[in-house]
Parts: sequence; structure tokens; C-alpha cells
Amino acid sequence: MWDVAEELKAMLVFAEHRYYGESLPFGQDSFKDSQHLNFLTSEQALADFAELIRHLKKAIPGAKSQPVIAIGGSYGGMLAAWFRMKYPHIVVGALAASAPIWQLDGMVPCGEFMKIVTKDFEKSGPYCTESIRKSWSVINQLSGTGSGLQWLTNTLHLCSPLTSETISTLKGWIAETWVNLAMVNYPYACNFLQPLPAWPIKEVCQYLKNPNVSDTVLVQNIFQALNVYYNYSGQAKCLNISQTSTSSLGSMGWNFQACTEMVMPICSNGIDDMFEPFLWDLESYSNDCFNQWGVRPRPHWMITMYGGKNISSHSNIIFSNGDLDPWSGGGVTKDITDTLVAINILEGAHHLDLRAHNAFDPSSVLLSRLLEVKHMKKWIADFYSNAK
Amino acid sequence: MWDVAEELKAMLVFAEHRYYGESLPFGQDSFKDSQHLNFLTSEQALADFAELIRHLKKAIPGAKSQPVIAIGGSYGGMLAAWFRMKYPHIVVGALAASAPIWQLDGMVPCGEFMKIVTKDFEKSGPYCTESIRKSWSVINQLSGTGSGLQWLTNTLHLCSPLTSETISTLKGWIAETWVNLAMVNYPYACNFLQPLPAWPIKEVCQYLKNPNVSDTVLVQNIFQALNVYYNYSGQAKCLNISQTSTSSLGSMGWNFQACTEMVMPICSNGIDDMFEPFLWDLESYSNDCFNQWGVRPRPHWMITMYGGKNISSHSNIIFSNGDLDPWSGGGVTKDITDTLVAINILEGAHHLDLRAHNAFDPSSVLLSRLLEVKHMKKWIADFYSNAK
Repeated sequence: MWDVAEELKAMLVFAEHRYYGESLPFGQDSFKDSQHLNFLTSEQALADFAELIRHLKKAIPGAKSQPVIAIGGSYGGMLAAWFRMKYPHIVVGALAASAPIWQLDGMVPCGEFMKIVTKDFEKSGPYCTESIRKSWSVINQLSGTGSGLQWLTNTLHLCSPLTSETISTLKGWIAETWVNLAMVNYPYACNFLQPLPAWPIKEVCQYLKNPNVSDTVLVQNIFQALNVYYNYSGQAKCLNISQTSTSSLGSMGWNFQACTEMVMPICSNGIDDMFEPFLWDLESYSNDCFNQWGVRPRPHWMITMYGGKNISSHSNIIFSNGDLDPWSGGGVTKDITDTLVAINILEGAHHLDLRAHNAFDPSSVLLSRLLEVKHMKKWIADFYSNAK
Repeated sequence: MWDVAEELKAMLVFAEHRYYGESLPFGQDSFKDSQHLNFLTSEQALADFAELIRHLKKAIPGAKSQPVIAIGGSYGGMLAAWFRMKYPHIVVGALAASAPIWQLDGMVPCGEFMKIVTKDFEKSGPYCTESIRKSWSVINQLSGTGSGLQWLTNTLHLCSPLTSETISTLKGWIAETWVNLAMVNYPYACNFLQPLPAWPIKEVCQYLKNPNVSDTVLVQNIFQALNVYYNYSGQAKCLNISQTSTSSLGSMGWNFQACTEMVMPICSNGIDDMFEPFLWDLESYSNDCFNQWGVRPRPHWMITMYGGKNISSHSNIIFSNGDLDPWSGGGVTKDITDTLVAINILEGAHHLDLRAHNAFDPSSVLLSRLLEVKHMKKWIADFYSNAK
């Protein structure tokens, strides 16, 4: 974005979403109960952006008659796309990077996501997925006895001792680690969710070349693999199964949104993917939401609000997706019209295109960025020719 | 609509706007205070319509894959246009009849409205506007004494005695009567705001042919003119200056909306129009709102939300306006694009085109209805060809 802004002589504005970071409408009480959380919706966030742009256009000399482009990645990419759909008078176009707008409410099969994660691991080293697929039953078996739990705790260097109650947390945490690795499988060392080496899944798979080792060796290998993600810096004394990311991405706010509007069904079957079979069960999901927040999700609302797959009457949105990114399964990966275009980045993970230029960038992302700027220039030129 | 529905083999659904009629979210308490009124916004109403259509498509056999068209008049026309703008995936197009979407927040000069009312009276009889223009100062002068107030009360057959405090209410009520007559200046007898004869302003102006009569005769003539509006049925025993319409159009709800989102500046100067000079004063308007509801208007929000005059990226909206209708001053009366089209009805008052076919319909409205149906058929044909 910084590079493109310079090229287009643009101002960059990073808007903080309400209920995230320091934008807490009720301060400390913002997450107190569902009454205080009532104002945490994507619609309200879009309205904030509309007001913010109006404010900036009034406050900044020369800004008034300048075109504005919405840019975002992940949920921010969904917001960027939806902002162009709902406020086309305010932004001339949107770059929606890795925006899984079709992951919502079953528009794509719930198994797609984990299939893509698995494909990433398949490509990153021989027998890597076989090792991981085998690990679940090994963990299940070891966790059957007290000594097995003790051994697992030690071998995985966990910060707190495992119990039979926390074994599912452990497995969930491991699964989420593989998912996160797929999201940040970037071609160079960087620090998005965790500090990581280039192509981190390749590093991980170095330790998982042989599924036909003893159960104990397999778990030791899994530890080495996890250690790539959690301890690349070498600072970690133990691994904490209650978190998968060092930086705070606002999990509380997202959790509430996932319990109201943003329901994204994900499942696995252990055959087409390397995970333990996990059914998508809206009822139990809804019950968990009710227990945590006192609210129940309304999964269909996002399609009613934003159109689901029926969005062809809109214009000037780029949907970019990385083929390595599990979220690409719920993204727009085919052109819808001449002005609702898909850009697929063969060697890209989660919104790689939005990252700064890097010497190790694959050609696929360089090309995407060129295309994205080309579209933006067209939107801006159209804006000025309409203004005449 | 009934005629067109038959022609298009369509189902008609009349959706009741929340907080109007029987759609009271908190029953008797719905208008208790601004807390209970928080959910009365145009955005929420549109969301209701989206949910309603979704529900009907699921509930009614065969409805699922049928195209839907939004139709409305006046505020309902604004909602129809906005619904197509915000939910183009739900309706294939909208007929926005007499929808003054540009009356909001000063997009048109505040004097336009009263100028059009005045033009209607000018066309309807000689010296009619001169009589009305003169009447204000006559009323002012007579109201200076107790006996004058008494005489006015008797001559105008008012239900309650006038005082020096209620004289401005009287004048406001008379002005609103002339405005309402302009809105319902239909070519045949009907009952929209009041039971009225055909071309009621012509009837009114019969009594106002001579402005050069004595003050007392002028007021007697004004009474005869008002009587056309308030007592065409001959049933009224006295005239009540606290109401201008027999049927309830939900004035409480509208009043709150006008105090929050729907701020429509209207003014007069007595020169370009026949009314007493009246400045548009947002501050005192806002203070009145605060005193009544504890809220202050946010006039700019509607433009931020719905785009104001910058709506060319949308499609498939017909804006129809009657040249006689004062609201046409804030309407879209020129084509914006090939698919955002204006239809002007030369002899039309407020959404005449939405009324049932009548033997006295002028050719201008017959033509408009033909055009409207032609557009609708095109939207439907496009819908089916896109669905293939």
C-alpha cells in the first residue's frame, strides 16, 4: 500500500474498526454484555468509514474533490468490497484482498478451507500430511493414561499440564497452528501472526518426513514442527495452548461478530484433509455463542445484506486471492463482470499482495500488484472524466 | 399498481413500515422516548423489507426464483429508490413515484417547494395567489384585538377560540392546507388526504377571484376556500386548526424521522411565492426536535448514506414526478443514466401515476404508466436472461 500510494500520490488512512484497538465506544465496559456490544456490526463499521471519509474531505485542504479507494485484507477486505457495494458514491473502487465473502453461511462447502491447508502441506514436503494425519490418533491414544498425559506435556514443552479435559484444546490448538501456517506461508521471513522463516511450512515439513516412526518419535517430531511456529525466535520457554498468535488481533471483538453476523462454516473429514473429522454443527455453535455472549448467530443475514453470490450489479471491485491461502476457498476467484475482477496469486498466502515489496516476492504477486494499480488508475481516470 | 400487477402477473405486497400502523416494536411504549424510538430509521425499514422478501420467497410456493420490483410513492418512493440502491440483489428495479430524495439537507433551494404550490394556484384561477398573499397581513391585522380574534374565530368557523398565541398556528394550518391542495390536485374527485372534488384548487380559486375586496370579505372568501378542503362532504360542524388530514398517516413517526434523518428544508419569501416569508432555520428546528423528543437532527447523514446527487453508479430506478406536485422540486426530474430515468407527468400531482386507472386521467399520466411498465418488463427480461 505504501508503494502504491506513492505511485498514485495518494494519502493513506488506516481506519480502526469500532470495538478494536482503542476504538472502544464504552471504554472498559465495551465487552461487558450484549447490550454494550449491540453496536458491533459490519454495517456500523461501514457507516463509520463513510463518516470518516466525509470528515477527512472537509478537514483536509484539497481533499474534498479527490477520489477515494477502499483497500483491505481478510475481514478488512470483505469490508472494502462491501463498502464499495453500499457506498459507491464515496469510493470509486475497492481492493478486497483475501476477502472470503463467500465463506459465509454455507455458500461454499465447509470442507474447502481445510482441504487448502492440507494441499499447502502436501506441496511443502514428502509425507508431511501423512505425519500430521497420523498424529491425532497417536495423541488420542497417549492421552488415555495419566502417564501418557504427563509425557505429552513434557514432550510438547507445554506451559500447563494436560488433562483429559484439555486434550481437545490441545488438538484444536495444533490444528489452528497448521491453519495459521497456511495463512502466513510467505516467501520470505516476516512477522505477521508470529515471527517466522521464509516458506515456514517447508521448515515445518522438514520434521515430518517420516510418518512410519514410533508414536513417541512422531510426537517429538510434531513438537519440532510446532516449534518452528511458536519459537522461531528461540525465546519461548514453553508452549501455551491457549493462544496461537503473539500480537492481539482483537479476538474478543471477532468472537462476538462470529457469534452474530460472521458465521463461517468450516469442517473436516480426515480423508480430503489431514485433520480429525469435525462436522459443522450450527446448533452447538449457536449454543456456545449463547453461553458466552447471550446472543445467537443469524447466519443468513450477511447474504440478505450483502447479496451473497448475487453481486453482479456492482462495479469496480478487485478480489485478489492467494492460491496457498485457505481463505481463498471462500473468496471470489473468477471474474464476475468486466469491473468485478478476480486476481489469483499462484504463490500467495493470506493477502500477500498487500505486503510491502520484497526481493523474494514471486512473480505472481508482482504481476497482481501491477494489475491492481492498473485497475485503480482506471477508476481514478473514470472519476475525473465523470466529474467534468 | 393493481392494473400493472395484473398485466405482469405479479403478486402485490404492501409492507407496513415499522413504527407505523400496527407495526409497533414496543406496542404502546413505542413512542415513549428516544430509547424506544432508536430503531425508527429508513435503514432499518429497508432491512425489514429485505427480510420480508426473503421470508416470502421461502414461504410462498413458486416465489423463490421470481424477480421482485420495489414500488413506492412519496417517502415510500424514496425507500423504493434506496432499496434498489442498497439491495440490488433483492429487487431488479424500483419505481420511485414523487420521491423527493433531493429535498434532503439543502440539495435544492428551500424555496422551490412553495414556488411550485404557488404556481399551481396561479394556474387555477385569476388573482387566486394575490388573494392568498394578501390574506396573511389581513389576518395579522385582525388578530391584533380581542374582537378581531373573536371575529376571525366565528368567520372561519373554528372549533376553538383563537388567541394571540394560536394565531401562528392558524396561519401555519392555512398554509399547510394550500400545500396539501397542491399535493392532491388530482383530475378527478377522490379521497387521499381529504374527500375532494376534481381539480380542487380550481374550486378553491373560485372563491378567491378578487383580492381587492374589504378585509372582512377577503377572510370570508378564505373561509369558503378552506371549506372546499375541509368540508367537501358537508359534514364538518367546525374547522379544527390542529389537523390538516382526516386519515392518520402516522404523523408521530414521521415527526421523529424528520427530527433525526429526514430533514427537508422548506422556506418562503412572499415574493416568488404566495406565503408569508419564512426562513429555514436549522438551529431552531433542532431545538424544537430536542424539546419534543430529546434528539437533534443529523441532516447530512442521508447524503452520506444514500449518495445525494451522486447516484449514477446505480441502475434500474424510475423517478416519476408530477409537475403540479410541490415535492417534484426535490425529485429527480432528469435522466441520470440510461437506467436511472426520470418521467415527468405534466398534469400530475403527488404520485398520480400510482393511483388506479381513471376515465379522467390526463394523457400525460397514461403515457407515464405505459413507460413505467415498459421499464419493468425490461428489468424482468434482463433478470431472466441473467439467470440462464
